[in-house]
Amino acid sequence: MRVAALAGGVGGAKLAHGLASVLAPDELTLIVNTGDDFDYLGLRICPDLDTVCYTLAGLANIDTGWGQAAETWQVFSGIQRLGGPSWFRLGDRDLATHLERTRLLREGEPLSAIVRNFCEAWGVRQAVLPMTDDRVATILRTDEGDLEFQEYFVHRDCRPKVHGVTFSGAASAGPAPGVIESLRSADGIILCPSNPFVSIAPIMALPGVADAIDSSRTVAVSPIVGGEALKGPAAKMFREMGIAPSATAISDFYGKSIAGLVLDEKDARQVPEINARGTRTLVTRTVMKDDRDRRTLAQAVLEFLKSGWQ
Amino acid sequence: MRVAALAGGVGGAKLAHGLASVLAPDELTLIVNTGDDFDYLGLRICPDLDTVCYTLAGLANIDTGWGQAAETWQVFSGIQRLGGPSWFRLGDRDLATHLERTRLLREGEPLSAIVRNFCEAWGVRQAVLPMTDDRVATILRTDEGDLEFQEYFVHRDCRPKVHGVTFSGAASAGPAPGVIESLRSADGIILCPSNPFVSIAPIMALPGVADAIDSSRTVAVSPIVGGEALKGPAAKMFREMGIAPSATAISDFYGKSIAGLVLDEKDARQVPEINARGTRTLVTRTVMKDDRDRRTLAQAVLEFLKSGWQ
Repeated sequence: MRVAALAGGVGGAKLAHGLASVLAPDELTLIVNTGDDFDYLGLRICPDLDTVCYTLAGLANIDTGWGQAAETWQVFSGIQRLGGPSWFRLGDRDLATHLERTRLLREGEPLSAIVRNFCEAWGVRQAVLPMTDDRVATILRTDEGDLEFQEYFVHRDCRPKVHGVTFSGAASAGPAPGVIESLRSADGIILCPSNPFVSIAPIMALPGVADAIDSSRTVAVSPIVGGEALKGPAAKMFREMGIAPSATAISDFYGKSIAGLVLDEKDARQVPEINARGTRTLVTRTVMKDDRDRRTLAQAVLEFLKSGWQ
Repeated sequence: MRVAALAGGVGGAKLAHGLASVLAPDELTLIVNTGDDFDYLGLRICPDLDTVCYTLAGLANIDTGWGQAAETWQVFSGIQRLGGPSWFRLGDRDLATHLERTRLLREGEPLSAIVRNFCEAWGVRQAVLPMTDDRVATILRTDEGDLEFQEYFVHRDCRPKVHGVTFSGAASAGPAPGVIESLRSADGIILCPSNPFVSIAPIMALPGVADAIDSSRTVAVSPIVGGEALKGPAAKMFREMGIAPSATAISDFYGKSIAGLVLDEKDARQVPEINARGTRTLVTRTVMKDDRDRRTLAQAVLEFLKSGWQ
């Protein structure tokens, strides 16, 4: 069974890890958002890619949801002592990734090739594809002006009110090698429980991606549980755009791109409403607290996908 | 007593530290070689500046002669795991310096201003001046072609035979703010026991520097003891250029730029030969094994300078 999964940060990485524990390595392709990528200290930081790769490699910091486990902070402390920028915390192990990636990008190597080599070094056997090798920046339209995602998310702690999202550079960007192919050849496509506005939408905004997604083989996992996002500003964004955050809102957001929605037990009473829109539903426990939860959800999602083929 | 000292790496840093422990902070200006500076991992590395600053700040690694004490290697290990370059070892604490300096240089801040701010953060009260804010590269003419200094020194472990040295960019570079002024206003000028070819000569090669050095107030400390350099390739370079390495050779190298030479007890019998060239001599112990040696040598050099004024 060949599966392509679109993923952003922590929620996406957790389900990716569950899928990786159920599927053979060559059955799974992860297509990861790069719209949050930014430059910091002269280094190219790719938060979602790193979260997915670190999680699959068993290197991720489970407590924070970003960076590596058993991290040290010597460089960060040294930069603070020199009065340098400190709003984005980079651990020493994590910095190795950013330094070497930035070096290779400057030498002209495409991001997708860099990620492939890094995954090999880290022992990640699944295909992890950045959505594009080009620069695409997720820009939030806020009451404090246009902000790059990390500026909004980390530096301003999601405080500004969001009234829109654009993906600068998306229209002229090309999907990375393998993205379109893996979507076309997939038996099933999963939109991971990532922020729909800033994690999944940028991938779908790339030329050719929406067309390559056969909605009859596509399901999404709702990142909204009980009216709140488990992590990040998704629920806040829905509210600021005048929409009550809910599994139904996720279903409406993806519309005709998906055939099914996986939603949490807490939201079971939304099922009739979602079904009425022509979207199938699977109600299950979607909160992933440990490896077993990840695996159980992954299995349920795969079964749900297969059930749609009948 | 206002002193300006020209310094390169470890030997220069040690004498600088000795001078700093004898003179008031505002009496000492250090003019430091930047001809060895290079780019590595996309970062600007300034080995001599850092060695001098770390030594004055009490942060230096005394065992290795480079980098910081109590250093950790998380970033370096991570980069090695990713297959990145590893010929130049950068510790985590040290990397903070390189990252923040590179960031500020990219923002257009001059190196001299950056060093001044870093020194303030590190508690260094003496004036530490890079020789220039412009790019000057010490290039070694070798039997394996032209090599940048660090390529020769670290990557190729000083193996190639050197038959000449040039300072690319020196003719059009401007001495950093304060360099010419501190030389002109100094009561005494010291050429530290650094490699004459690659540490002191690049500073002297900058427009206006040689003219600003009043040789009657200038003494050098020989970095050659018993026919060998205490550290680095100075002796090897002398031999490869057909000159026997000795205190006399140092005296000849600096020629009329100096009035006096401080040489080690081991080389005492070279005194008549050096005096015959019109250069005064001070014979003392020049090997600095601990802080007390640094201070003792500094005091002796200052006394020697003063004795020349009578």
